[in-house]
Amino acid sequence: MDNFDLGNFPLLAGFTIPNAKLAYTTHGTLNAAKDNAILFPNFLAGSDQALEIYIGEDLALDPRKYFIVLPGQFGNGFSSSPSNTPPPFDRGAFPPIHVADDVIAQHRLLTEHFGISELQLVLGWSVGALQTYEWAVRFPQMVKRMASIAGAPQPSPWTRLWLSTVIEEPVTSDPAWNNGFYHDRLDVQAGLRRQGHCMALTLPPLSYYHGDVLRSLGFASVNDFVRGFFEGFMLGQDPNNLLIQARKARFADPSRGGDMAAALGSIKARAFIYAFTGDVMFPPGDCRLDAERIPGSHFRELTTTSGHLTTFGLFPEDKRAVDDAIRETLAN
Amino acid sequence: MDNFDLGNFPLLAGFTIPNAKLAYTTHGTLNAAKDNAILFPNFLAGSDQALEIYIGEDLALDPRKYFIVLPGQFGNGFSSSPSNTPPPFDRGAFPPIHVADDVIAQHRLLTEHFGISELQLVLGWSVGALQTYEWAVRFPQMVKRMASIAGAPQPSPWTRLWLSTVIEEPVTSDPAWNNGFYHDRLDVQAGLRRQGHCMALTLPPLSYYHGDVLRSLGFASVNDFVRGFFEGFMLGQDPNNLLIQARKARFADPSRGGDMAAALGSIKARAFIYAFTGDVMFPPGDCRLDAERIPGSHFRELTTTSGHLTTFGLFPEDKRAVDDAIRETLAN
Repeated sequence: MDNFDLGNFPLLAGFTIPNAKLAYTTHGTLNAAKDNAILFPNFLAGSDQALEIYIGEDLALDPRKYFIVLPGQFGNGFSSSPSNTPPPFDRGAFPPIHVADDVIAQHRLLTEHFGISELQLVLGWSVGALQTYEWAVRFPQMVKRMASIAGAPQPSPWTRLWLSTVIEEPVTSDPAWNNGFYHDRLDVQAGLRRQGHCMALTLPPLSYYHGDVLRSLGFASVNDFVRGFFEGFMLGQDPNNLLIQARKARFADPSRGGDMAAALGSIKARAFIYAFTGDVMFPPGDCRLDAERIPGSHFRELTTTSGHLTTFGLFPEDKRAVDDAIRETLAN
Repeated sequence: MDNFDLGNFPLLAGFTIPNAKLAYTTHGTLNAAKDNAILFPNFLAGSDQALEIYIGEDLALDPRKYFIVLPGQFGNGFSSSPSNTPPPFDRGAFPPIHVADDVIAQHRLLTEHFGISELQLVLGWSVGALQTYEWAVRFPQMVKRMASIAGAPQPSPWTRLWLSTVIEEPVTSDPAWNNGFYHDRLDVQAGLRRQGHCMALTLPPLSYYHGDVLRSLGFASVNDFVRGFFEGFMLGQDPNNLLIQARKARFADPSRGGDMAAALGSIKARAFIYAFTGDVMFPPGDCRLDAERIPGSHFRELTTTSGHLTTFGLFPEDKRAVDDAIRETLAN
């Protein structure tokens, strides 16, 4: 992972992060014409490893052909974040971030550092899709194609309730939270585990809790799945970092408080909007309406069985469905 | 509301509640033959008022024809509960309750106090349905008909996760909880409100959060609905009482750790098993499987739009669907 030095970075909220940095990882080689780049922003609590399952010589994101940039986002623990910023902007005092701040920082990385002026594709899952929409609206001339995978320009009212109830409240209600000024992130382990419980309740399709689905994933019981997968996932996170990301997602709005239909209507990218059957976070019906507002876009509902979790690729057919979607977008 | 004195009541868990009481309300008159009684146990955090919307001269539960008993359950705040039991069984030290304890207490009320030996119908919604199943299995000769409305003999793995995540953890993680020995139940208001948020996220169908559904119910926004309906509902509850009820529901099991197929196969009641489309708590597919294990039973999926909340009767068509279901059961 590399770091791009953003200097003193002004945020939309009016704060300035001193010596801000944007972490990033690349795969493949930027060609001489600098026209083979793809940008793949990350999801909430995401990691490079989670996205890299879609990069390979036998996959749509082929590093022999494309220069693939996995950009960080503020609050992810590698880019400037509550967990790595010195006082006075440390921990619970880290300023609020907008999705647009991430996208502006990513744009600077691509243009200033790499000299890229055109992207073959911007794609993202969930909060990565929020960034994808922001990219397509903010820099329409630079984004040749976009793929929103289980995402939207902004979360639905239910999904905003999810972000506050599942991500924010379980940690902010933990006595060890101390307004974000805990000593060690695992002091807040009880809150992180409760986040995991709320996620286990709301993210997998109900089918995961019937029959042999969990056993086929290697879990002996529901409790084993809840602890082994969801608690384990959340215990790897820093509570302040999660909060920054959740609040950023909650207030995503590429129209900047304006007219969403006009914002989406201004997109120049060839847009593919993918939704997963049974995804409560970004329901196919909502995604279809988003797609209808983007000129010349294509909407696809993918009938996978893992709902919003499809992109984790827990089952081979989930991974294949997402890879096929990326392949379709790139072929257009 | 009346109280039936149970004396020193032995619980399945091995504790004895001193001077235990079962609260109850009745509608109509018990006839001379004592064969017109209906029992309508309550749901988690339920109230007489919530059930009484189904009792009336123009409704299936007609008090001119039937003697309708709304029995309490341990932990409901009126029957013996953490909130009204003196030390040493007070508050956080109240003993664990099984659904069977409720049903045994209700059976004593009906037989000892009223001299009833046959029930025209036992019916219940949700946790009330857990009691209904326990009744039909434990006292098969006494229950002529049963109606399970959005319920089951025991909650699914997902529903058990719901009970611990949505009802138990938000209050037990509140610093004011103090192992159940708070001074005033509203000291735990933050935990009760978080319960409300988790409920708002998991109970209404997603359709509630689209279009004009909430406005048609009189709420100006999602936040207004979450605070006005769900926080309001939970703030009326005592945290210890909720926990007793949630844990009781989590461990419901009319087979007593044995063979559920045999337990359901032993039911003599004419059984009607009703499920609501979109109910994640008791999905229609699960309810159908329960029904298949009950000799001669009938399964019905009711295509209401409120999912598990249908029985609240927030919309006239929801109330009508439940009333029609009760009418169908009584006609058979």
